[in-house]
Amino acid sequence: MISWDPDPDADPATGVYTFGGAAPVATLRPGQVLSTWTRDCFGGRVRSTSDMASQVTDPRYLNPQTGPFWIEGAEPGDTVAIHFLSIEPRFDWGVSTTVPFFGSLTATPATAMLHDPLPERTWFYTIDPAARVVRYAALDSPYEVDLPLDPMHGTVGVAPPLGEVRSSLTPGSWGGNMDTPEMRTGTTCYLGVNVAGALLSLGDGHARQGEGETCGVAVECAMNTVAVVDLVKGAPTPWPRLEDDHYLMTTGSARPLEDAFRIAHTELVRWVAELTGLSTIDAYQLVSQTALTPVANVVDTNYTVVAKIPKAVLRGATGYGGLHQRLRVVRGS
Amino acid sequence: MISWDPDPDADPATGVYTFGGAAPVATLRPGQVLSTWTRDCFGGRVRSTSDMASQVTDPRYLNPQTGPFWIEGAEPGDTVAIHFLSIEPRFDWGVSTTVPFFGSLTATPATAMLHDPLPERTWFYTIDPAARVVRYAALDSPYEVDLPLDPMHGTVGVAPPLGEVRSSLTPGSWGGNMDTPEMRTGTTCYLGVNVAGALLSLGDGHARQGEGETCGVAVECAMNTVAVVDLVKGAPTPWPRLEDDHYLMTTGSARPLEDAFRIAHTELVRWVAELTGLSTIDAYQLVSQTALTPVANVVDTNYTVVAKIPKAVLRGATGYGGLHQRLRVVRGS
Amino acid sequence: MISWDPDPDADPATGVYTFGGAAPVATLRPGQVLSTWTRDCFGGRVRSTSDMASQVTDPRYLNPQTGPFWIEGAEPGDTVAIHFLSIEPRFDWGVSTTVPFFGSLTATPATAMLHDPLPERTWFYTIDPAARVVRYAALDSPYEVDLPLDPMHGTVGVAPPLGEVRSSLTPGSWGGNMDTPEMRTGTTCYLGVNVAGALLSLGDGHARQGEGETCGVAVECAMNTVAVVDLVKGAPTPWPRLEDDHYLMTTGSARPLEDAFRIAHTELVRWVAELTGLSTIDAYQLVSQTALTPVANVVDTNYTVVAKIPKAVLRGATGYGGLHQRLRVVRGS
Amino acid sequence: MISWDPDPDADPATGVYTFGGAAPVATLRPGQVLSTWTRDCFGGRVRSTSDMASQVTDPRYLNPQTGPFWIEGAEPGDTVAIHFLSIEPRFDWGVSTTVPFFGSLTATPATAMLHDPLPERTWFYTIDPAARVVRYAALDSPYEVDLPLDPMHGTVGVAPPLGEVRSSLTPGSWGGNMDTPEMRTGTTCYLGVNVAGALLSLGDGHARQGEGETCGVAVECAMNTVAVVDLVKGAPTPWPRLEDDHYLMTTGSARPLEDAFRIAHTELVRWVAELTGLSTIDAYQLVSQTALTPVANVVDTNYTVVAKIPKAVLRGATGYGGLHQRLRVVRGS
Repeated sequence: MISWDPDPDADPATGVYTFGGAAPVATLRPGQVLSTWTRDCFGGRVRSTSDMASQVTDPRYLNPQTGPFWIEGAEPGDTVAIHFLSIEPRFDWGVSTTVPFFGSLTATPATAMLHDPLPERTWFYTIDPAARVVRYAALDSPYEVDLPLDPMHGTVGVAPPLGEVRSSLTPGSWGGNMDTPEMRTGTTCYLGVNVAGALLSLGDGHARQGEGETCGVAVECAMNTVAVVDLVKGAPTPWPRLEDDHYLMTTGSARPLEDAFRIAHTELVRWVAELTGLSTIDAYQLVSQTALTPVANVVDTNYTVVAKIPKAVLRGATGYGGLHQRLRVVRGS
Repeated sequence: MISWDPDPDADPATGVYTFGGAAPVATLRPGQVLSTWTRDCFGGRVRSTSDMASQVTDPRYLNPQTGPFWIEGAEPGDTVAIHFLSIEPRFDWGVSTTVPFFGSLTATPATAMLHDPLPERTWFYTIDPAARVVRYAALDSPYEVDLPLDPMHGTVGVAPPLGEVRSSLTPGSWGGNMDTPEMRTGTTCYLGVNVAGALLSLGDGHARQGEGETCGVAVECAMNTVAVVDLVKGAPTPWPRLEDDHYLMTTGSARPLEDAFRIAHTELVRWVAELTGLSTIDAYQLVSQTALTPVANVVDTNYTVVAKIPKAVLRGATGYGGLHQRLRVVRGS
Repeated sequence: MISWDPDPDADPATGVYTFGGAAPVATLRPGQVLSTWTRDCFGGRVRSTSDMASQVTDPRYLNPQTGPFWIEGAEPGDTVAIHFLSIEPRFDWGVSTTVPFFGSLTATPATAMLHDPLPERTWFYTIDPAARVVRYAALDSPYEVDLPLDPMHGTVGVAPPLGEVRSSLTPGSWGGNMDTPEMRTGTTCYLGVNVAGALLSLGDGHARQGEGETCGVAVECAMNTVAVVDLVKGAPTPWPRLEDDHYLMTTGSARPLEDAFRIAHTELVRWVAELTGLSTIDAYQLVSQTALTPVANVVDTNYTVVAKIPKAVLRGATGYGGLHQRLRVVRGS
Repeated sequence: MISWDPDPDADPATGVYTFGGAAPVATLRPGQVLSTWTRDCFGGRVRSTSDMASQVTDPRYLNPQTGPFWIEGAEPGDTVAIHFLSIEPRFDWGVSTTVPFFGSLTATPATAMLHDPLPERTWFYTIDPAARVVRYAALDSPYEVDLPLDPMHGTVGVAPPLGEVRSSLTPGSWGGNMDTPEMRTGTTCYLGVNVAGALLSLGDGHARQGEGETCGVAVECAMNTVAVVDLVKGAPTPWPRLEDDHYLMTTGSARPLEDAFRIAHTELVRWVAELTGLSTIDAYQLVSQTALTPVANVVDTNYTVVAKIPKAVLRGATGYGGLHQRLRVVRGS
């Protein structure tokens, strides 16, 4: 196991806020287990219902990433796999907010309108890791309710292709800010490598989120994370894929949202055809009758859709030669 | 109970292919149970893998509806509720197809391109109602696999507002071709009334479908359906809502797909605020952390998204004064 | 010439607010000249800066149409041509407004958000038909400026296919509320016939409008219109086309806006190929280097894009056998 | 005047294919005239109808830029202005192509579908700079026609914000691959500065293009360009603006296309309000009745729309204190 411990007192200006464009902080060998932690998307600067994100944070320093990690031997055309052994809130609290002109039910810089912004508010959540709940408390009435704790990373990715450097607020073919609750303990994420060393980063922990991340902000929290990383040589992965014990999943990140759907579903059709030997049109049919399609986010600079197929209908076919099954039994190294 | 038995030998040209624009076939009293059946979307004319939809059907006569039913006492501003007591395939078979320039992963008349159409093919499914499975059989290889039977209606709706008459291929605020697998036995569907009598119709039975109905065609089958219909006076419902034992659900049907998402989620935020007394911004926050958002269809003339909130987080709040709970215990009348 | 004079005192409830679904008011023979007039989109009920559309109009009775006219001999598969000999404001004034949740820079029922509506305001324009100007006068400052008078019809259409009846607020393959400034004196509009008699209507006069009709409302005015109508037997027109002395034009109406673009451009590529004998891919290339693409509207229930190609690059090719050239010389009948 | 002469024999791998992420090649003082030239988007490697872009080019090395130039004194929050004194084809030929899965009327990596690509073809254009024409020659028939020469730069931009580095194939708030024919001789382009020195680059010369750049490729050619560059301190420009002798113009680059429209039009409304003293709602009204809205491109990774307002309706108001009028009279320095 390798431990990577970010400096908790580092100046925000020294943080990593992009995929690509940053020097690696450590090297990981394929098969190695990484133990690390991530800051919340506000860099820990929103701590109470009176902290407004637009006042206590600098828009240049949002969504800090832990990493990037150089994956030994990774070359363009390979695939990096990261299997999450444990994702647990680092503290007993999380926050959510509305942010002016950010979210799915408000005008934004892209869906530009003449409206004033919606009110900016901050909600504070207590997290009870033993009871596996987070507590929602309304601001304008005494309403409180416990919600299931379901920790995940909103952001996992590698350096993009074409020499691009992309903000950690954006999802795309390199991963990034996909904001899908499927990125939880027990999931393996596959990412195509675009540059030598891959330059894997992660961040944006959520104690839980709804599908779509409607207001743009989940229950944001710092996260302690243990993951095993591996490398599949010579296997390109055009768009991020996920796998858990029951499903194969593809993702698409684009605008409009139907293009995110189209990417995820063409990728799923092609993956199913490859794994089962079905013709493309037969795979199209099988996916059409069996896919689940949860929306991931409709708030980021690209929107993300996940397409899932139950492994049960694939008659034993398995992705990347059974890598998920091997990684899930790892318990250190 | 009232039975409505469509003429199985009727000429397709005499069928009902619109919401609005057709005379009612029968009157239903609120609280009455309706037992009826629906033709499949092809009017039963695609029966084997050698029947191509574009050859054996007339494009004017697709997706025939059973109805419309006049709901006694329904006036604009009211809500009709239909709770499905039983939706069961009428025969032991279903079909699916690809259709030239129809589906989510092909050019269409709206997403117009210069491509030739994808191949037109038909898949035949055997349905085993006892084992609760449908059997997928590939066309180009010997691959077969059983999928769970999950019968539903793709189309449920009333007459639209503004004097419009809309094709049964289109979903919108009046319901119609929403193509969500949530429209299954045990679900209550709420529809706002736009014209006197409401003019409720249903059809487009699916033995099952994936979320998104990716190729545009589910496992289509004729359906025997029993449902109880009720009326909520003076309760407008802007967009179709669904409720089952565990979830409140809203729908949005529009293009682009993010607009369908926005409709479903604004409706859910407002419904949650109304039921719980939460402020709008508190409801926005609660929905953001708890909603499920399965895509319904990305193939029809409008796309449909469903937003779901677990009733467990609503602390006992219930839609339409507990109507779903009352209807679910109906066993005839 | 045939004159059709709507009753100026008719009750709004008796008006025609749809394409399809209304009985013809008169019959036109191909080649006949029609002289008529149209109400403004508010039915004349917004007459000063203190009239708010949401207060003085009924949402069921917006955008009244003159017609429908039965075109003698028109059958599905034919094309109706209407060439505008004269479109002139009926009075010396017009109005424009903002309307709550309508327009391109505001949340709408489809692009649903949690914002309050923008302010509702009404602007009054004086029209000077001799000087060919309309006068803009700001509401919140003394700013005034004359704009060129450029009268047009926002709405021209026939009954839709598939038995549908569509609101006069919606554009589509049947024409309808396209809101393009190209629909001016000297333009010929070609519409595919979907039902016997075609059922041609027109309305929604604009003294002028910007491309996109950004706030949703042009300089609305009643209009005196003279047009010659003709019929092309056996010539289908999938989407409305326009022609003036210098350009062939196609239209697409859909959401998202890129689908409207795709429709207009595929139609233009195919029309150019047909008229010139170019292969499809050669026509695609020629259109790519020569098309003008003014946005028509981004506010209606479908958005509309126009694609234009200069006739000069078509080496003498002409649409519908030179019909525009013949109609433009008509001076009565 | 400063001349910058790229090495005509440079290895493509040493070229600049991004905005941001490259070291400046020279420094420009505000007010200085730059004389330079740009390679065509294929780096000159497509030279005849038998050169297929997918075979003779490397996808990593498309759309090479000339620059970046360090603008002396430029800081974030300033605006760089570049006024084009002359844009002339460097050679007497240009090329256009179709490219597999690129263009507006084909499936693409984002609008992902299961179609095979359209045919890949290359068209060769002769350019006659004296006659001011380019000659289109069909590939599949003997059709030829002269089109007006109208040289322009598809790509002009600065380094993006948030530390991003963006492919020269993408347009956005930093400019980049906007592909609007308005970027011609006589136009001033205003770009907001995001990093010290601004890092201005340009490229992608087109001998002409249609609005929308429908097939994705204009009449591509190397270009000799003379431009004067200036700096407006303390004047932020959120999205690229253009100005010529008759129009003020804004741009928006986003997906879906209506978001590009919304950006361009909100920017135009706000700019008009600022320049005229009109209230926002009065400016919204004036823009609604007077804007022209030509589509720029519907093919790049973001789509671009231009909104134009005639200066004549602004009663003498002028952008950036009359900078365009001053720059247009420059004849060297």
